[in-house]
Amino acid sequence: MDNIQYLLKGAENLWNNYVRHEFVIKMKEGTLPLDIFRYYLIQDAKYVEDMLKAVLLASSKGPIDIVTKILQSIFYSRDKGLETNKQLYSKLGITIDEIRKTGYNLVNYAYTRHLYYYANIGWNEFLVAWTPCMLGYSIIGDFVIETSHEIYKLWATFYSSQEYKRRVDAILEALNNVNINESILNIFITSIRFEIGFWDSALRKEPTVY
Amino acid sequence: MDNIQYLLKGAENLWNNYVRHEFVIKMKEGTLPLDIFRYYLIQDAKYVEDMLKAVLLASSKGPIDIVTKILQSIFYSRDKGLETNKQLYSKLGITIDEIRKTGYNLVNYAYTRHLYYYANIGWNEFLVAWTPCMLGYSIIGDFVIETSHEIYKLWATFYSSQEYKRRVDAILEALNNVNINESILNIFITSIRFEIGFWDSALRKEPTVY
Repeated sequence: MDNIQYLLKGAENLWNNYVRHEFVIKMKEGTLPLDIFRYYLIQDAKYVEDMLKAVLLASSKGPIDIVTKILQSIFYSRDKGLETNKQLYSKLGITIDEIRKTGYNLVNYAYTRHLYYYANIGWNEFLVAWTPCMLGYSIIGDFVIETSHEIYKLWATFYSSQEYKRRVDAILEALNNVNINESILNIFITSIRFEIGFWDSALRKEPTVY
Repeated sequence: MDNIQYLLKGAENLWNNYVRHEFVIKMKEGTLPLDIFRYYLIQDAKYVEDMLKAVLLASSKGPIDIVTKILQSIFYSRDKGLETNKQLYSKLGITIDEIRKTGYNLVNYAYTRHLYYYANIGWNEFLVAWTPCMLGYSIIGDFVIETSHEIYKLWATFYSSQEYKRRVDAILEALNNVNINESILNIFITSIRFEIGFWDSALRKEPTVY
């Protein structure tokens, strides 16, 4: 059995609360208000930049062959991901300057610091903390791509693509080298809680003051 | 004027001592003994792994757009570089296990710790410490590719390739964002001294005990 299956079993229904969150269902049904999506997209842009930096920091501590494979899969498709974002930003009138000037909400700040924290501790710990984001968005992308809402379909294009699946496959393969124990499972669960909190905070448009 | 021109001017004849070192001339003329090249290649393999980890560590501290461009150029062509090495290792009977079991010589250990040191300090400092290696090998590759020696020509294939030039171009472009002062110039010069020492130590087959 792959490690991811142990971890998902340990996380129980939290995982489903994340990948089938009200926010996700509303994207698919096309009923999510655009102002809420716009708020989310800006928070997500801030998250991704920090996530990428944490990936690089953690990668400097990992086995070079495994790390290379993952980074190749990421940098191979990064332009495609940025291109999708560019189209979304254009449709919603979001500028890079607005992203820079907007603060983090509390969940986003805590989540990204959590990623940096484990990137400082070690590659394996980071990998486990990072997996819910990468795997979850693949599952969510496959779900939301069925929507008839133009914007949410565009958003899901990248996460449901083969290029994105290649990233996830490389991550899940690397995950099999980690010895799963209770503290590792707790890192995984904490990240899922942050993902749920990320959707929650977007639905509530929490203050962005950090 | 580009920053690299200021730095090269500041390094004076040290740069030429590096890129037209006796080791390099002998590769081109085909008179470098194979046992010395074999010794070099193993030290270089150890160097490259540490260098890559230092690049990732430093990248986690750099501006994300600049860093992405450089890492894309590296991971885009990393398979090609590894393929050339694989052919060289096969011809010279070098195994991954031998590389792992061989220690660093003193210059190699000092040089790679120097890279980690500046990767910990910051992106700009690391970039300057890293440039002599990346730019120098491009110039050396263009020189050695003219050789009629089969092994040394194969070695130079990657360093004289368009893919490798793309890496160097991205690095030199990023370098223009660094404010050049005396301490920055000193980092650059120290790395050139290490490159010269790297060739020297290979010619002498220095003990590999670190």
